[in-house]
Amino acid sequence: MDIVEYLKVKKRAIDMALEKIIPKETDFPQSLHKAMRYTLFPGGKRIRPILAMAAYEVVGGRGNGILPYACGLELIHTYSLIHDDLPALDNDDYRRGKPTSHRVFGEALAILAGDALLTEAFRLMSKEGLRGEMDSRAAMEAIDEISMSAGFTGMIAGQVVDIESEGKKVELPTLEFIHTHKTGSLILVSIRTGGRLGGAGDIEMEALTRYGKAVGLAFQITDDILDVEGSRASIGRAPGVDMAREKNTYPALLGLEESKRRCNELIGQAVAALELFGNKGAPLREIALYIGERTS
Amino acid sequence: MDIVEYLKVKKRAIDMALEKIIPKETDFPQSLHKAMRYTLFPGGKRIRPILAMAAYEVVGGRGNGILPYACGLELIHTYSLIHDDLPALDNDDYRRGKPTSHRVFGEALAILAGDALLTEAFRLMSKEGLRGEMDSRAAMEAIDEISMSAGFTGMIAGQVVDIESEGKKVELPTLEFIHTHKTGSLILVSIRTGGRLGGAGDIEMEALTRYGKAVGLAFQITDDILDVEGSRASIGRAPGVDMAREKNTYPALLGLEESKRRCNELIGQAVAALELFGNKGAPLREIALYIGERTS
Repeated sequence: MDIVEYLKVKKRAIDMALEKIIPKETDFPQSLHKAMRYTLFPGGKRIRPILAMAAYEVVGGRGNGILPYACGLELIHTYSLIHDDLPALDNDDYRRGKPTSHRVFGEALAILAGDALLTEAFRLMSKEGLRGEMDSRAAMEAIDEISMSAGFTGMIAGQVVDIESEGKKVELPTLEFIHTHKTGSLILVSIRTGGRLGGAGDIEMEALTRYGKAVGLAFQITDDILDVEGSRASIGRAPGVDMAREKNTYPALLGLEESKRRCNELIGQAVAALELFGNKGAPLREIALYIGERTS
Repeated sequence: MDIVEYLKVKKRAIDMALEKIIPKETDFPQSLHKAMRYTLFPGGKRIRPILAMAAYEVVGGRGNGILPYACGLELIHTYSLIHDDLPALDNDDYRRGKPTSHRVFGEALAILAGDALLTEAFRLMSKEGLRGEMDSRAAMEAIDEISMSAGFTGMIAGQVVDIESEGKKVELPTLEFIHTHKTGSLILVSIRTGGRLGGAGDIEMEALTRYGKAVGLAFQITDDILDVEGSRASIGRAPGVDMAREKNTYPALLGLEESKRRCNELIGQAVAALELFGNKGAPLREIALYIGERTS
């Protein structure tokens, strides 16, 4: 399969769906909708919604029922970026090659646009459950797990520990806690949501979970590596900011070579977890390999 | 009926339920859970969850099925206070007689604690739908309406217009937009959620909606009036801050007497909307009268 073409087709479907959901820039109050759109479009790789769609299809899910959940996951991811970039948190000036939200709209609107995207994610997912393409109960289970993965037991716990560890030397277990929570948990739940709504059985869910844990951690390790090895053009922001900020990263703790070795090991684990899907597992396998080799 | 006793009993039930939901201060990461608890306890009047419970019971709802939704609404309200108090927004130093969240925990944790409370609200409500005390579909409808009322078509739209109107002289329609969105929409949806989950029919829902719109606007007008007439002891923060900040308020636009007249008129409309409930409507009627006369 052509993974580049696959990712392009999926990204287009997600972008079109997101375009429909978010109000136009001309709707009142315009500033809020502009700020919501600014970080959402053109956006990044859409890796979380693509993983949700791929997992959905791999276990036999059909049609577009997964799309609102895939979009909801991207809205949650986008809100977390806006809040993470704020001066009080990471104080980042650039994201994906353009100034961050608070630099363009001011802090107040950046905070509120993030809040609005998070709230809209849940509206979108509950609305879909109502529309009947999905069973209400399955939809509810998905919302439940997504909110746990995004909340104080998941992503936000990771953000808190990340901030509090800045400038301190932490041990590997703490770094793993940060990475598996801050980045890993939303990636894992994207895959599990796709599987769950696609009708995966227990054994399939277990395989997707192993795949998701490995891919989620590998994704963050490559992020750390790109901060060291990437160029501004490829990663859309200045490289080296993690180091300058004394962020705890895999390269800082284990060195570049060992970080790459661990990343490859995780990609191997992810691919191995897909065995039971046979040929049908190709999209998820190719995405894992793509993550292992990504340069942006 | 003894409204003071009624409010006390309901508040206690809500506080006990909230106490169970939010992790202990000793759980990791402690700072996050401390910050989540700090603004939530002892909290305010719990007027939104009490309205949800009262509406639920007035239309014949039984048992504690409404409690998770009532608590979810209070979590959403609490997150909105934390974010609203931030330096980039209202820059408030005191809330309910104690320093605001960012003054105690710093801005980063205040932002993340707010995010966590909002996310937890949706987990709590979807979890309840799964537990089966509520029909999944009704639960989903409730989540859908709550997210709309809290999001970019509701509360957040009000916050944005409020911030952008500071220091400008606005007309009454804009002030009404701010009030009905920023405060009114969460109060209205609290009442409607109680009604919906309590099994209200169309006519009952229509009456609750009229009641909720009137009560929601009256609540904000009394807030504006208290900023002029209240003391620091009664309102838990310095009075006169709205004026100092050139906030648009009813007293500033219409004068104190006319504001009070409008408030009384709204309370009258709220009480009139309850006619079809007869004696059963007493709790909602007494809450409306209480809101009209509140001093804190």
